[in-house]
Amino acid sequence: MKIIIFIIDGLGDRPNEKGETPLKIAKKPTMNRIAEEGICGLMNAIDIGIRPGSDTAHLAILGYDPYKVYTGRGPLEAFGLGLDLKEGDIAFRCNFATVDDNFIVKDRRAGRLDFETAKILEKEIDGLEIDGVKVIFRSKGYRGALVLRGEGLDYMVTDADPHKDNVKVEEVKPLRKEAEKTAEILNKLLKIIYNKLKDHPVNIEREKKGLPPANIILPRGAGIVPKVEKFYEKYKMKGAVICGTALIKGIGKMLGLDVIEVEGANGTPNSNIMGKAKALLNNLDKYDFFLINVKAADEAGHDGKFELKKEIIEKIDNMLSYIFENINKDSVYFVLTGDHSTPIEVKDHSADPVPIVIWGKSVRKDDVKEFDEFACAKGGLHWIKGEHVMRILLDLTNRNEKFGA
Amino acid sequence: MKIIIFIIDGLGDRPNEKGETPLKIAKKPTMNRIAEEGICGLMNAIDIGIRPGSDTAHLAILGYDPYKVYTGRGPLEAFGLGLDLKEGDIAFRCNFATVDDNFIVKDRRAGRLDFETAKILEKEIDGLEIDGVKVIFRSKGYRGALVLRGEGLDYMVTDADPHKDNVKVEEVKPLRKEAEKTAEILNKLLKIIYNKLKDHPVNIEREKKGLPPANIILPRGAGIVPKVEKFYEKYKMKGAVICGTALIKGIGKMLGLDVIEVEGANGTPNSNIMGKAKALLNNLDKYDFFLINVKAADEAGHDGKFELKKEIIEKIDNMLSYIFENINKDSVYFVLTGDHSTPIEVKDHSADPVPIVIWGKSVRKDDVKEFDEFACAKGGLHWIKGEHVMRILLDLTNRNEKFGA
Repeated sequence: MKIIIFIIDGLGDRPNEKGETPLKIAKKPTMNRIAEEGICGLMNAIDIGIRPGSDTAHLAILGYDPYKVYTGRGPLEAFGLGLDLKEGDIAFRCNFATVDDNFIVKDRRAGRLDFETAKILEKEIDGLEIDGVKVIFRSKGYRGALVLRGEGLDYMVTDADPHKDNVKVEEVKPLRKEAEKTAEILNKLLKIIYNKLKDHPVNIEREKKGLPPANIILPRGAGIVPKVEKFYEKYKMKGAVICGTALIKGIGKMLGLDVIEVEGANGTPNSNIMGKAKALLNNLDKYDFFLINVKAADEAGHDGKFELKKEIIEKIDNMLSYIFENINKDSVYFVLTGDHSTPIEVKDHSADPVPIVIWGKSVRKDDVKEFDEFACAKGGLHWIKGEHVMRILLDLTNRNEKFGA
Repeated sequence: MKIIIFIIDGLGDRPNEKGETPLKIAKKPTMNRIAEEGICGLMNAIDIGIRPGSDTAHLAILGYDPYKVYTGRGPLEAFGLGLDLKEGDIAFRCNFATVDDNFIVKDRRAGRLDFETAKILEKEIDGLEIDGVKVIFRSKGYRGALVLRGEGLDYMVTDADPHKDNVKVEEVKPLRKEAEKTAEILNKLLKIIYNKLKDHPVNIEREKKGLPPANIILPRGAGIVPKVEKFYEKYKMKGAVICGTALIKGIGKMLGLDVIEVEGANGTPNSNIMGKAKALLNNLDKYDFFLINVKAADEAGHDGKFELKKEIIEKIDNMLSYIFENINKDSVYFVLTGDHSTPIEVKDHSADPVPIVIWGKSVRKDDVKEFDEFACAKGGLHWIKGEHVMRILLDLTNRNEKFGA
């Protein structure tokens, strides 16, 4: 029996003054069918009243305790960019940025630096060594990931990124004694990078064209690569991730899941959602487990766009109908849920639980006939946590171990 | 107010293709009456998605954390056979078996050795001493329990029992350094036992009759007798267990509960179920607390017999009607539940929750009118854990302590 967990990012919402949510009023015949045939409930990825990130929520739903394995977004972004990280590496998200001689940030994205130029500048940073610590850097346009590898490092340091323009690059500060060396190295590194990049031919060329030079990187979101039991070791299932965003890919890679790339899947409302369905069906024979993430509903939530979020949900419903024409209860347990709510009124993640349905041969079907925040609250799963999801699925597919005799 | 917890072993199930479970379609007027008059819900003895043994589940329902007090089945079996164990004793389940000169197992049950012969051979083993460690042994036909008592022992050792015929008795191996002595003693003990039993008169007699000699014991399921707070100390209630299986009796004895023996209660579908009801009613005045276990439904589940499981549930319903003619809400809180599900499709325990109802004077009656996996999911107890059961009962009977002022 295969397991498919389908996550609509930012799915849940709070009712507007008419008592409506995008999910409640969306036309979603397939989601409703799944709810009617399955067992429904509400879920908080981490716990009741805890506002999760997409990263911590996905980790929890995959059965990993985010309080143990998550220290910051850096490592996940670095994994997502394809870096081969080792336990203990310290990783940061970065932007290429433009600073003046006084380290005042003039443009936090260096004019949204293009991929090709970034790749040229990447070579100036990747491979540096400071006080015995190896510097690894990988770019993706103006974004990138920085990794420090060596002895005596610690992730408890502040961001260099001031998160806005026209202020000075922040001096990196240690948040505890063990992080003093790391902060020192980062501050040295930023000066070295500035000196290497400020007169670099591509930047001189950019300035000639009136473009902001990419003469610094701004690290943020420090984290340490944790010791994690790989997904296959933990569950004895060959698994894959299908998603558009680097963050979720990074989670997959950190856990040793294969990442199935889908052309045009980019995490935006125009993402190639149907391409993900096809990628799933084309690879169904090759894996025991799939995690599929569709990001666009979350984006609409962050932008406060009710109608857009509803339309995206309807588009996803259409994609699900395609999947459900091609899978059956003899071979699959299918979970439809979200990682967290991104309510229109909040424009950010909230701790409101998300609806969840588990569909498959031997679930105890309940009376719920609609997939939304209200109907699912009356389902047979009641109100579960992310950590329960994999355990329930392992049990339904007769994979989990007995405790006792 | 007395408390009665009635556990139908392996009660829960998964729906078949018609959406039925044995419990759902069984004729069970008394169970339905209890559900209608009580407050219902679902329960996982340990936690959502955790597949319990009967042992760990019963411990949890009795308010003992199985992760702390359970290390293996050995101690419970040994208690169940009436041995007076001490904290720190290492105990094993055993079979009398037949081996050849090369220690190849020819019959794992020594032809299902009879009780009388076992009692004779028991004396050859019980009381031995090896390297200062005392050997205690008690038989019940071909089954038995072995206890090692002494300094420097540890339960983390492998089974000597190879769990099948025509292979060699396994050398006992330590699973950690602290268990080296224990493994060594066990290996020595098995050789001593073989040398004592192989030419024992009763075995020579058996061989003459063409019966396999009982010339070895095969220990398995090592565990250490934990430090536990006795039931009476913990709850200030005089309690008793009524059950047919040695395992549950063992749990009762370990916790200091009295075991009320019932003739013909043997844990099989032919068990004297009604005898347990009578034992309860006859002893009602003598105790504050009863745990009753009826094993047969679990057996039917392990055998994958839908119809038999349904019939056993109907038989239990009949027994419950007899109990309910003789108890009333003025003096009793009654809990009807299972320890775990043993679904027909799985033929083993699963983590699917079991229905639970608490019946008594002051429960908040809900709308549930049927006692099954689906109806109880809509009850006022929602989805609880085993650890909550005693706490709720202590509270309903005004026995638990206030935390705070």
